[in-house]
Amino acid sequence: MLQHEKEVMIDFLNKEGMKIIQRADYFNFSLDSVLVSDFLTINRGTKKIVDLGTGNGSIPMLLSRRCSADITGIEIQEVSADLARRNIELNKLEDRVEIILDNMKNWKEHFRSGSVDAVISNPPFFKYEGNEELLNDLDQLTYARHEITANLEDIIATASGLLRDRGYFTMVHRPDRMLEILDIMRRYKIAPKRLQFIHSKLGKEAKILLVEGIKFGREGLRVLPPFYTHDEDGRYSKEVLQMFE
Amino acid sequence: MLQHEKEVMIDFLNKEGMKIIQRADYFNFSLDSVLVSDFLTINRGTKKIVDLGTGNGSIPMLLSRRCSADITGIEIQEVSADLARRNIELNKLEDRVEIILDNMKNWKEHFRSGSVDAVISNPPFFKYEGNEELLNDLDQLTYARHEITANLEDIIATASGLLRDRGYFTMVHRPDRMLEILDIMRRYKIAPKRLQFIHSKLGKEAKILLVEGIKFGREGLRVLPPFYTHDEDGRYSKEVLQMFE
Repeated sequence: MLQHEKEVMIDFLNKEGMKIIQRADYFNFSLDSVLVSDFLTINRGTKKIVDLGTGNGSIPMLLSRRCSADITGIEIQEVSADLARRNIELNKLEDRVEIILDNMKNWKEHFRSGSVDAVISNPPFFKYEGNEELLNDLDQLTYARHEITANLEDIIATASGLLRDRGYFTMVHRPDRMLEILDIMRRYKIAPKRLQFIHSKLGKEAKILLVEGIKFGREGLRVLPPFYTHDEDGRYSKEVLQMFE
Repeated sequence: MLQHEKEVMIDFLNKEGMKIIQRADYFNFSLDSVLVSDFLTINRGTKKIVDLGTGNGSIPMLLSRRCSADITGIEIQEVSADLARRNIELNKLEDRVEIILDNMKNWKEHFRSGSVDAVISNPPFFKYEGNEELLNDLDQLTYARHEITANLEDIIATASGLLRDRGYFTMVHRPDRMLEILDIMRRYKIAPKRLQFIHSKLGKEAKILLVEGIKFGREGLRVLPPFYTHDEDGRYSKEVLQMFE
């Protein structure tokens, strides 16, 4: 199964007996992926989901437990897309999950406009402020964490193009970019409907933001109960442990 | 002290021994006023504060414990403004707190532009969607709760006009109007800097929003730890009891 010295296979979701292959030098699945996969609204109309920047395929795998929709992950990095494909096969999800190797900005080459019920993303959180000439020398983690191949607007524009009327867009990001996110969503006709803030523990500022909007949705924003990742003693909270079982 | 059959005098803040006169048929001080008064950033530069829509003067009274700034409350309803003035005298705050009876939109008749260090408000939360012809028959509570004499934009425009560069604007409102609030603040050059959501208890959606911005401030939004008004058993939380001592 493993094809590179830096690859490791780990247990993913014990209850489902999933495994996932990761590489130490690439972006790996994190609590953020788990949180955003859980946050997405899934209903009877959810038949086709697209994950923008799927990395090693963790979000499609997580979503596959929640629904029987067809899921497509788009990934621009060849090594990650290859890992994602092998992870999908490893977990026998190849009849439901497809991985496309491409820049999400080329979405029109793969999908019809308005043909998707839900779009999800755990995108790069940081603006790239380095020198353009250094881009070729960046390590892969820098790529996954910085807006180099697609920025916030590219991601939301792609989501809006893919989504059908009343389709859902869900993303995990940082609270300090919330205003920008809410502005761009509305510019691309995705009405923000649900926010949830993730705090490390009681009494701490929000570290992570979950946001969901509806394409051509009506106004009306709800702020869900806060989510705590750790308890008072610094251990993972009940809620997090439940997610990983 | 009491001048009307519907007036009652109650203990306000036990530790300071304050009293407040209220009327059952008018808007009374509430936890919202206490929360927003606590939320305002006060520093050495805070020498002049204006409260927009001061009601019976509870916010100026609450702020008077936190700082020695001069505080002005503006109130459009004559009965409320009269109550506010008597409350200020009752608590011997007349050399620091002034009450102006007017529509806040006439602020230029009372203040120089950019002359205020901080503006605070517990404004009406609801849009008025009733018939314009019914306005004369509305009871006073309806006035205080609906945007009849000033709407969200009037309040924020007034705050922006009053505030000096780097002055603070703080408001309590409902989370479902957050997008509108953040949009209007930015349109009037008040950069949103701090948000706090108030939940009735753990696991419940946010009921109340506290927001603070800085006139001509830089970008950068923080989401503070959530505030819970009640504990698991439905009693007031430690944090609320501390506020009232």
